[in-house]
Amino acid sequence: MMKAKTHNITIAPQQERLKAKEGENLFHFLVRQDYTIPSACGGVGTCGKCRVLLLKGARAPSESERVHLTEAELEAGWRLSCIQHIDQDLVLEIPEVEESVRAKELLSKVLHIPLDSGVKKTYLEFPKSSQADQRPDTIRLQEELGEGQLTFPLPVLKKMPNLLRQEDFKATVTWAANHVLDMEPGDTTRAQYGVAIDIGTTTLAGYLLNLNTGEEVAVRSRMNPQRSFGDDVISRIKQAHERGEEGLRELQKAVTSGINIVINHLCQTARVSPAHIYKATVAGNPTMIHLFTGIDPSNIAHSPFIPVLRDSLILPALGLGLDMNPEGQVHILPSISGYVGADITAGILYTKLHQAEGIQLFIDIGTNAEIVLGNKDRLLACSTPAGPALEGARIKYGMNALPGAIAYVFLNDRDLKLETIGDRAPKGICGSGLIDLGGELCKLGLINERGNFGRRVDLPISNRIRQGEKGQFQFLVSDGSKPIYLTQQDVRELQLAKGAIRSGVEMALRELGVTLDEVEVVYLAGAFGTYVRRESVLRIGMLPELPLSKIKPVGNTAGQGAKLCLLNQGKWEEIQRLAEQMEYFELSYLKDFSQAFIGSMHFPKHPHLE
Amino acid sequence: MMKAKTHNITIAPQQERLKAKEGENLFHFLVRQDYTIPSACGGVGTCGKCRVLLLKGARAPSESERVHLTEAELEAGWRLSCIQHIDQDLVLEIPEVEESVRAKELLSKVLHIPLDSGVKKTYLEFPKSSQADQRPDTIRLQEELGEGQLTFPLPVLKKMPNLLRQEDFKATVTWAANHVLDMEPGDTTRAQYGVAIDIGTTTLAGYLLNLNTGEEVAVRSRMNPQRSFGDDVISRIKQAHERGEEGLRELQKAVTSGINIVINHLCQTARVSPAHIYKATVAGNPTMIHLFTGIDPSNIAHSPFIPVLRDSLILPALGLGLDMNPEGQVHILPSISGYVGADITAGILYTKLHQAEGIQLFIDIGTNAEIVLGNKDRLLACSTPAGPALEGARIKYGMNALPGAIAYVFLNDRDLKLETIGDRAPKGICGSGLIDLGGELCKLGLINERGNFGRRVDLPISNRIRQGEKGQFQFLVSDGSKPIYLTQQDVRELQLAKGAIRSGVEMALRELGVTLDEVEVVYLAGAFGTYVRRESVLRIGMLPELPLSKIKPVGNTAGQGAKLCLLNQGKWEEIQRLAEQMEYFELSYLKDFSQAFIGSMHFPKHPHLE
Repeated sequence: MMKAKTHNITIAPQQERLKAKEGENLFHFLVRQDYTIPSACGGVGTCGKCRVLLLKGARAPSESERVHLTEAELEAGWRLSCIQHIDQDLVLEIPEVEESVRAKELLSKVLHIPLDSGVKKTYLEFPKSSQADQRPDTIRLQEELGEGQLTFPLPVLKKMPNLLRQEDFKATVTWAANHVLDMEPGDTTRAQYGVAIDIGTTTLAGYLLNLNTGEEVAVRSRMNPQRSFGDDVISRIKQAHERGEEGLRELQKAVTSGINIVINHLCQTARVSPAHIYKATVAGNPTMIHLFTGIDPSNIAHSPFIPVLRDSLILPALGLGLDMNPEGQVHILPSISGYVGADITAGILYTKLHQAEGIQLFIDIGTNAEIVLGNKDRLLACSTPAGPALEGARIKYGMNALPGAIAYVFLNDRDLKLETIGDRAPKGICGSGLIDLGGELCKLGLINERGNFGRRVDLPISNRIRQGEKGQFQFLVSDGSKPIYLTQQDVRELQLAKGAIRSGVEMALRELGVTLDEVEVVYLAGAFGTYVRRESVLRIGMLPELPLSKIKPVGNTAGQGAKLCLLNQGKWEEIQRLAEQMEYFELSYLKDFSQAFIGSMHFPKHPHLE
Repeated sequence: MMKAKTHNITIAPQQERLKAKEGENLFHFLVRQDYTIPSACGGVGTCGKCRVLLLKGARAPSESERVHLTEAELEAGWRLSCIQHIDQDLVLEIPEVEESVRAKELLSKVLHIPLDSGVKKTYLEFPKSSQADQRPDTIRLQEELGEGQLTFPLPVLKKMPNLLRQEDFKATVTWAANHVLDMEPGDTTRAQYGVAIDIGTTTLAGYLLNLNTGEEVAVRSRMNPQRSFGDDVISRIKQAHERGEEGLRELQKAVTSGINIVINHLCQTARVSPAHIYKATVAGNPTMIHLFTGIDPSNIAHSPFIPVLRDSLILPALGLGLDMNPEGQVHILPSISGYVGADITAGILYTKLHQAEGIQLFIDIGTNAEIVLGNKDRLLACSTPAGPALEGARIKYGMNALPGAIAYVFLNDRDLKLETIGDRAPKGICGSGLIDLGGELCKLGLINERGNFGRRVDLPISNRIRQGEKGQFQFLVSDGSKPIYLTQQDVRELQLAKGAIRSGVEMALRELGVTLDEVEVVYLAGAFGTYVRRESVLRIGMLPELPLSKIKPVGNTAGQGAKLCLLNQGKWEEIQRLAEQMEYFELSYLKDFSQAFIGSMHFPKHPHLE
């Protein structure tokens, strides 16, 4: 029996020596050895949290490492552990994740806000009742707490008399905004958590935060179980509408159970009881918010695109069936219109367009791309139908950004280099890969302005352009055991997507009456914005011609905004105000939008970024 | 076959002529003829509402008519129809019960308050959504209503989109305190009701009020089904405590189902849908309030007598299981201590002790008698253990104030006259009958100071004093087919009851530092206070020696206070303040209370009211 080849892994500064098998994934190896490595994506290379410092054995950085780490960090040897395959001896340091350090980082460095969740938890040793002190239980609590008039929910009133006497009038009370949420015997003040939830059409993300320290104690994401009812919001609305109340209930149940699985995973990871989660904040697009609350979104699907809700909502957890303290309150962030939702207001809260002096542009790309343009004086928002191409749908070999998806493509005259998510064998093309392909092919002139493939005899790479079904040209992306092509039709879908976004941006500039030069920053939000190469975005003309440095990928801003509202009541007030301030305009009602859309489908005449 | 004798009944001024059978009850006869006769007690002679004006055929007024009608009214011929048995031709007028008249009477004459329930109902014809008007449904409603920011409960949000479009954007919205309670298609603004509930240990009373007009559209009372768990609060607390959560749930279910039967009867009577009841107010003693809300009252039963609750509560109807609009709010009136409850604060609100210049005394007599003494400057409250005698318990032939109960007794040297509730054959003795017996026997010197029976040879009535079991003396009250006696032990029970009340009043006077002469009025509240003869109360020394004219029976002040809070938000605020203002003192903790109690058990030396 041949023994598998092994490598020495040395953990500095402890100088712990471990043996790892050739080819093993570093992230999973370290986790198995009981090292705490933060990860939001579970080790598939998309969250950028699992960084380690390679003192020996660092390879050239991958594109996704370039996205998540700075030049200086890469230079120093920082890499993402989840995309390292062990093929040599390594010496590495694992960053400390000691509680107070992480809390400090989260609050002061990352979110820049003071901790003020509104949830309070106090341990009290009450004076016992006696002939001289006949105060009722509620009054006793209220007066000992010294917080003025409190209201009590029935379940707390029901358990109060026995609970108080159970531990000899020693108990912990939890309350928010003068409303008591819970009582427990003894001192449980340390157990005080909140959860921020981002309901994406594709993915549910949950963030468990310690409301005492501000620490993010666990992060989880998971496919939205509603996907079995359809990939995009329109197909889900159709399901809900056609099957009436029953359909609506099923869709609500699907998303609620998905969120509950996320919450339970978060709680297991951090060893927290769901009963100690007292507050939740929820972001999501308007359809997701309607379906989560069980409200019929039907009228969003057709003109004039009317949602039921726009303002924020505060609802008891019990009524929504969430696995958290039943008296805990669920704060649903405000929306703007039928397509510009709480995910966008959360993104603006986080990126601070509403406080900017200069003009800023915020784009969240999905089946619909939401565009917000403006500054502290005025903010315009619109939604443009980018279609499903950038989420991998209607693309012959398209797929979501999951392990094995081609995320980055690099072409030169003769060679092609790919990067896949999780460094797996290529299985398909996701949105960022599609844009990279478009950009690289444009760069080499293998696609013309009108989007047609054309061979260049001077470039050996041209031989990847081949005739497929019905004599249509297609580009061979990967020729492994399962060849992957980019078809002419795929290029058309890309043109529709990028044309919708480009024309939306142009219209927003016109509506606000500003020029492109005045735009000081473009935030690309969402998973897509995080992974896409900005060069390729410009090469295909998805955005008008801008300096590359003005484009900033900002990741899941919906989740970040939800966290802000979870940790700080002032931010919850602020998001109400900014939602009021934002002006929505209906792109599809503008007379010349169709024309602009068609014009924007062309690729730029001359590659401009060589 | 002999034809039954009939009499002519002429209804003036219409001059309608009817035939009635000899001996028929006038109230039931008129109701059968479809005349609307108000009644809260269903025709058993206790509510005093069924008055008619007898132009011909009026008999000498009965004692209960003397309680409910003034001298002038009796003089004019007003009588209670339910205690008239038809034995001659009658000419009578039935008072108009036309809506507006009754509403005006109720509000301006009886309760003296403006109509301001806080519940609002508005019919709106909304502008339809369009390209030019993309407002979300909730914003559309809010802006058309022009009432500022509204909050919406989930059930309303769920039905809103379809409901709005069902009748072409014509709908009625109901809201209170900026919280939407319901939406209905079309115009339903007239259907707007509230219910005031008095949860008595013995009896549940419900009052259905039209919140548009203030009219009392129906009144119902019913036995509290919790009586199967015991007659008094202590035995119910014992049940709840011994059987734990299960017992508590059963007691709550019993009272809730009883209230729901009352509500459903009210709704049937007035042809109102329970969904159109948007507000409820609830009064009751502290144990009843705890059991109604499902909160453990155990610690009320033993020293230091600690309730869980004291302050008022506002709870959603849905959570309490009441048959009314599920989003409707149930306002539970505030209490003072473990025995001085929402029934007493409601009574003070109604009788206005908290606004009085002069010193006033309020007494609500039950198993415990609650005593409130004071004026606008200071109000003292206490509770004294009167025992169950005045509710008919522990009295050999005792019974509740139900049809057949001996309510009044008149003695002279040789004769005895009885009045029973509903003018039925005597079945037993209720509280007012017991006091009357005591008072009349004292008056004639047939009971001495120490409460012992003694024959007076000069009085033929003395032969009703006979020897019973073990040679004990007893007084023959009724010698029909089923003889009824007042025993020596019954007199002892009466002494305990009246001694507790008398000593409570004395202690309250001392605590407040006022003399008896300073007391300008004594309100006797509750069913008991309504029916008892004031002469008898004074003759047995239940109250210290006062002019008869200072004693005012005020009926069910708990129900009246609950109605005030139902109709007027200012009164709801006022009852919170007065509850805060009231000072409780624990009678049983006063060193000399026992001694005062024993001293107060003696009957007055000389009958003082001959």
